[in-house]
Amino acid sequence: MNDALPIADIPAAALPVSRQAVWLPGYWYVLCESKELRRRPLQRMLYGKPLVLFRDDLGRPGVLVDRCPHRNVPLSLGRLESGRLQCAYHGWEFDTQGRCLRVPGLCTEAEERARNAISHAAVEEDGFVWVWGEPDVTPDVGPPSFGMGDIQGYDNIRQRVVFDATVHATVENALDVPHTAFLHRGLFRGGRDPIEIKAIVTRSPSSVQVEFVGEPRPPGLVARILSPSGGVVTHFDRFLMPSVAQVEYRLGDENHLRITGYCTPIDATRTAVFSSVDFKLRIPHWLVRPFVVPIAMRVFAQDAWVLKAQSENVDRFGGEQFASTAIDLIGAQVWRLMRRAEQGLLPEPEPDWCREVPLQV
Amino acid sequence: MNDALPIADIPAAALPVSRQAVWLPGYWYVLCESKELRRRPLQRMLYGKPLVLFRDDLGRPGVLVDRCPHRNVPLSLGRLESGRLQCAYHGWEFDTQGRCLRVPGLCTEAEERARNAISHAAVEEDGFVWVWGEPDVTPDVGPPSFGMGDIQGYDNIRQRVVFDATVHATVENALDVPHTAFLHRGLFRGGRDPIEIKAIVTRSPSSVQVEFVGEPRPPGLVARILSPSGGVVTHFDRFLMPSVAQVEYRLGDENHLRITGYCTPIDATRTAVFSSVDFKLRIPHWLVRPFVVPIAMRVFAQDAWVLKAQSENVDRFGGEQFASTAIDLIGAQVWRLMRRAEQGLLPEPEPDWCREVPLQV
Amino acid sequence: MNDALPIADIPAAALPVSRQAVWLPGYWYVLCESKELRRRPLQRMLYGKPLVLFRDDLGRPGVLVDRCPHRNVPLSLGRLESGRLQCAYHGWEFDTQGRCLRVPGLCTEAEERARNAISHAAVEEDGFVWVWGEPDVTPDVGPPSFGMGDIQGYDNIRQRVVFDATVHATVENALDVPHTAFLHRGLFRGGRDPIEIKAIVTRSPSSVQVEFVGEPRPPGLVARILSPSGGVVTHFDRFLMPSVAQVEYRLGDENHLRITGYCTPIDATRTAVFSSVDFKLRIPHWLVRPFVVPIAMRVFAQDAWVLKAQSENVDRFGGEQFASTAIDLIGAQVWRLMRRAEQGLLPEPEPDWCREVPLQV
Repeated sequence: MNDALPIADIPAAALPVSRQAVWLPGYWYVLCESKELRRRPLQRMLYGKPLVLFRDDLGRPGVLVDRCPHRNVPLSLGRLESGRLQCAYHGWEFDTQGRCLRVPGLCTEAEERARNAISHAAVEEDGFVWVWGEPDVTPDVGPPSFGMGDIQGYDNIRQRVVFDATVHATVENALDVPHTAFLHRGLFRGGRDPIEIKAIVTRSPSSVQVEFVGEPRPPGLVARILSPSGGVVTHFDRFLMPSVAQVEYRLGDENHLRITGYCTPIDATRTAVFSSVDFKLRIPHWLVRPFVVPIAMRVFAQDAWVLKAQSENVDRFGGEQFASTAIDLIGAQVWRLMRRAEQGLLPEPEPDWCREVPLQV
Repeated sequence: MNDALPIADIPAAALPVSRQAVWLPGYWYVLCESKELRRRPLQRMLYGKPLVLFRDDLGRPGVLVDRCPHRNVPLSLGRLESGRLQCAYHGWEFDTQGRCLRVPGLCTEAEERARNAISHAAVEEDGFVWVWGEPDVTPDVGPPSFGMGDIQGYDNIRQRVVFDATVHATVENALDVPHTAFLHRGLFRGGRDPIEIKAIVTRSPSSVQVEFVGEPRPPGLVARILSPSGGVVTHFDRFLMPSVAQVEYRLGDENHLRITGYCTPIDATRTAVFSSVDFKLRIPHWLVRPFVVPIAMRVFAQDAWVLKAQSENVDRFGGEQFASTAIDLIGAQVWRLMRRAEQGLLPEPEPDWCREVPLQV
Repeated sequence: MNDALPIADIPAAALPVSRQAVWLPGYWYVLCESKELRRRPLQRMLYGKPLVLFRDDLGRPGVLVDRCPHRNVPLSLGRLESGRLQCAYHGWEFDTQGRCLRVPGLCTEAEERARNAISHAAVEEDGFVWVWGEPDVTPDVGPPSFGMGDIQGYDNIRQRVVFDATVHATVENALDVPHTAFLHRGLFRGGRDPIEIKAIVTRSPSSVQVEFVGEPRPPGLVARILSPSGGVVTHFDRFLMPSVAQVEYRLGDENHLRITGYCTPIDATRTAVFSSVDFKLRIPHWLVRPFVVPIAMRVFAQDAWVLKAQSENVDRFGGEQFASTAIDLIGAQVWRLMRRAEQGLLPEPEPDWCREVPLQV
């Protein structure tokens, strides 16, 4: 009997036999934080394609394919001239729609369709610049932003980390509970005898959610200070198409933590994660803030280390060969959603679909 | 309407869709300056093939394929013994024709055809060592040297620079006028309102020439000193098969500058340019000399930077996709000559072929 | 006439035209010295496959394929827990047979066939840890160890060196006499007029041996001290399947030197050589020991340099193209044995096969 079967529709034998990255261009992806895009063009990659980001005179972002149509030099090597992007080689100038508006030296009209750069739809929302994965498309939906805006009592911290791994390996790592006691030994969990709790997995045509029921308040001073009355831990892990990983904790009434990771496929083997941490705590935030980024960066560094080792090993052996168990709650589900979306087959709604899995933490 | 058509026979759609380097072995190429080849063997590459250069006892250059026929070790790791090249591994010895004359330890005769190294014709002329691109051929023409010998009043300065680019991208860069105001901003041109001049393009079965008519004397003190009477600028750009790029300027009667770039394809993605600058100026040359190399090296560094970025981007996008205009005077012409020569089809003479193109400088 | 024919069954034209490494998994290979394997897992490669070595609680070595069956992370990143190898990612634990004995967090039974790691037979003998090249096999022969145990009067020195070369190029280099006067100029031979001696080549279905007859005592003080009476040099070079190279010298009655190189194919282009030097000399060993390792390392460095240059050049030219002579005594023989074994065709015994070749040393 394969432990993975109760929660996965895909038997282990059907799992991918080579490290393939899915290709899901029909979605919004975060390319940078708003504050990263200033007076200079910025190069970012999406699905292996170099893109150049810049702002026009009104500060609106534009995203073009990072290749001058003239001699194919990256436009990101150029500079901004009156809200236009000017190529470093011959000075051709483009607006945020990719239109070529000037060809220095040419005595005839500059504009001509063949001279235009390729553009992608771009919007700025919740402090991120988002791009649509397909060129020349005007999407009729906005980006899947989870920003809390200015809800009173909440703070927000952001960080960009690049992992040498596919999106699906990165998402699985972000939402996986059992690894924390080993890879992050000493930072999370551990230090007491394991307790059996219950994970409830539910899914929709574009998301997977795991709720953990019965998780006790962690031992130690910090948790006592946060929730002196003891209280109950509420813990959700969520995946949302195409590549959002979210972890949410509540401890008592006064403590709320939500980490949202927007994953952007740089290329087939690298993933950028823009993490946004919203939190409200009983104790003053200025006491907590100085520790959040250093601890998060330590955790990210450990995850980056193991994901890189995993990716290299998968390549070395010619493909993924994963033996899953019942407590691998989310990886196979994520893979299933991605693969079906790639094939144009979004799953049907399954209102009653629900699995309960016991696990020890 | 495609601006490129008036001067190019090749429509944009027919331009190469992947970065391919032409292969033209039936020509002379510069491998090194004479002064670079002394008492040690020297390794140079041509079309991706390693060659070893050395001198015999009389100082005559020899060029062999850089692979010992015995165990395939590079002969360039060896040393010279009485005008023979001795392999570093087992001591086999070769003359400049590639003949194996000694096999240490062997009690029978050393010479045998299978033990000979492969040789290329080599000549020394105008301070360069030239090689014929095909092995085992005795060419009946000499190298296309433009050395001025000892013409009174002229000085000569040389420099070798390696570009991460194909020969045709390197040649186009060397002979392109419009990029100078942008890539070399502050070093050439610019600083005044553009003036419309005329470019006259002519071509032969093995060359292309562009004459610029109406180019004014540059502004600034230097030009005033060089030519106090004002005078006229005469400016030619030339390409000669297989890979010579030449720029010639005259300012008044007393100032003459000719830069000849002999381009040698190292491999499909790198080109060595041996540039030879001949000049005669009104002011004393010792005043000028100290500035020529530093300024030239700055220009070369900027060109190398943009050519490398162009090459990498072309690779990343899977091939060249160039949108040309009327003022791309020479690139498509050079490509046409190279491609036809590669296919064994030298163009017919076209005595009356001539195009006039207006451009702003 | 091809000089190579008298001793080689394989004509030059049939020699490999591309650098191919043979694949001979059905043999024992040295992975490390016993003393290298302590309290931490150790990663070593064999034929391009990463293996992890560790010891159980009783100190017995285990060798597993270095990939956790769960999420494919290298097990060598983990640590030892009570003689089990614990994966760094999720803490799965394996014994030396590869059995998965624990899946942390899982509430059901851990053991299941799909969760086992792949194991290779491993033995410790003569101070080395040996592995069988095929997984899941219990060999009925032991490793081809040449350890002298505790024979009185002998000392032993060991060293591991990695060469950027195939096994057959490494073995040929180790057993080749003519290169020593050139590549190791000044360290061996040379310094006098060459003398003609005789090489006697014999072979069995799994070995090749060359005996050198008539080699004089080397000139110089050292040889005089070692063997004041003059004496005779006895010199054998031997190859034993799959990849053992052995050189044995005797000078007079009191001096005996035997260098055994166990070659392990790391991957198609790299070979680890575990060399074991057994020696008995007339002069006190404490006088000699300080010089053995430095001189050996100098020789290895020169060999590594030329083998790397050879390998790169073979790759650059698309394959080996070797012109052999009569004094290339062993290379073609080694290649013949390896290729036949790879094809499952061990040569028939040839009791009378013997060749005599004159050579100068």
